[in-house]
Amino acid sequence: MTEPRWHYEPFEPTGSAIGFRITGKLDEVQSPFQKIEIFGSTDWGNLMLIDGAMMLTARDNFLYHEMIAHPALFTHADPQRVVIIGGGDCGTLREVLKHPGVRSATQCDIDEQVTRMAEKYFPELCESNGDPRAELLFDDGIAYMANCEPGSVDVVIVDSTDPVGPAEGLFNAAFFASCHRALKDDGILVQQSESPLMQLELIKAMRAEMGKAGFASFQTIPFPQPCYPTGWWSCTMAKKAAGAGFGFREDDARNKAFDTKYYTADIHKGAASPIPFVAAALGGS
Amino acid sequence: MTEPRWHYEPFEPTGSAIGFRITGKLDEVQSPFQKIEIFGSTDWGNLMLIDGAMMLTARDNFLYHEMIAHPALFTHADPQRVVIIGGGDCGTLREVLKHPGVRSATQCDIDEQVTRMAEKYFPELCESNGDPRAELLFDDGIAYMANCEPGSVDVVIVDSTDPVGPAEGLFNAAFFASCHRALKDDGILVQQSESPLMQLELIKAMRAEMGKAGFASFQTIPFPQPCYPTGWWSCTMAKKAAGAGFGFREDDARNKAFDTKYYTADIHKGAASPIPFVAAALGGS
Repeated sequence: MTEPRWHYEPFEPTGSAIGFRITGKLDEVQSPFQKIEIFGSTDWGNLMLIDGAMMLTARDNFLYHEMIAHPALFTHADPQRVVIIGGGDCGTLREVLKHPGVRSATQCDIDEQVTRMAEKYFPELCESNGDPRAELLFDDGIAYMANCEPGSVDVVIVDSTDPVGPAEGLFNAAFFASCHRALKDDGILVQQSESPLMQLELIKAMRAEMGKAGFASFQTIPFPQPCYPTGWWSCTMAKKAAGAGFGFREDDARNKAFDTKYYTADIHKGAASPIPFVAAALGGS
Repeated sequence: MTEPRWHYEPFEPTGSAIGFRITGKLDEVQSPFQKIEIFGSTDWGNLMLIDGAMMLTARDNFLYHEMIAHPALFTHADPQRVVIIGGGDCGTLREVLKHPGVRSATQCDIDEQVTRMAEKYFPELCESNGDPRAELLFDDGIAYMANCEPGSVDVVIVDSTDPVGPAEGLFNAAFFASCHRALKDDGILVQQSESPLMQLELIKAMRAEMGKAGFASFQTIPFPQPCYPTGWWSCTMAKKAAGAGFGFREDDARNKAFDTKYYTADIHKGAASPIPFVAAALGGS
């Protein structure tokens, strides 16, 4: 093992950078879609980078995976059929399957190599892949949603990379229209939506595209995510009905029969409460 | 103005780094205590670095300043006399003076140059420096607290740099004992306490030192702070009485007559709610 060195990742959209003290490169594969690299680090466990962008660390991925899954699933009255677009590291799938009411969870990531690397370097994220309710597809998520049976899905989770490269098509009205059609009337779409401090324009544009696709109510939930630029990230939920509200099954969240490291009913309430500067920019929470 | 370039800051204690796209150095002064540098940036406004460590940006300092001031002040029943140790950029002082019940707020920073630089490059943070309730001292905060009249202070805010260099003496039992003596029986000590994800051992050690000084109840409040390593920071409150509890004046917070960009009563409640992995490490919230 060579001496630890600093790996820096400048992120143009926020004008800021993150970096990690790495101990060496453990693996690298060039898939048909992107370059996937695995590094070891002194303090963050294994790291996965895709096309040079930090995707996850062993140390802090629980924040993202818990917060993209549980607020949406506890906001839905009775989520049984869940689709995850992207999410090839399987961490979101694991959180979804903690909900005993979920009958099936399909993960559709275009790049099988992401999952193969996760199985090898983040095995804890893949521990529910053998669950009989889990379906792992390696296919185009845009096509998958377009071909989904209308009104068949309770929750669609878009667990994607940044809106460039393979994920670019996951941030526009055409894709959101497929999600809208696939969802039941009371269904929920939730998507990772970048930094609430620095990318409010992106969140606003994303909500506008969701609106064009027929979604009418939105809630953006911020959460800490140290391995992403600014360390403060968000996901945005959308519902079909205007004025739908985003009250959640608080008692169920409080009495959940599974462990989480960050998510609790009170954390959910806090994250759902309007932040003045965000609300001012988005015209609501 | 030269081309923008990336400035990276590796942070040993977390094994991670932050960085910013800067447009150039605007100023630099070597005080008797430390080197203070001001940079311009493409997305974060002006930046202040002390001995190479990021102290504040124009863009995100409101998060830190609001969260070190308002939770403590709304947790205290009737804060009238407030002392700020450090805080030379005057941003915490500004937040404290938003509370109409505060009768006097003394800011004691060892380094006058920090305030002079803030006046020039962050004038918005200094807009309450002329408030008749404000006292700005440039002196040793350790000596100031040691000489404070016993039982005279409602809230002590330790708004310090990292626990190295001039601030090292602000993280031990001797200093906390001075704070304990200066505070009234129902007084509150609050101190910035680094990253809740990566520095739980430091928070634990800090609470232990506060405990040696006689404090018996603690609450650690996390908040986003993109310009600090990991982007997730915290402050820790301490009270003298065992089992004191940290309920706060929620109605007053909800009906406050001043603006904030991040702090609200609901954000306070969310931040005060236990996070499972933090509670497990600290043995409480």
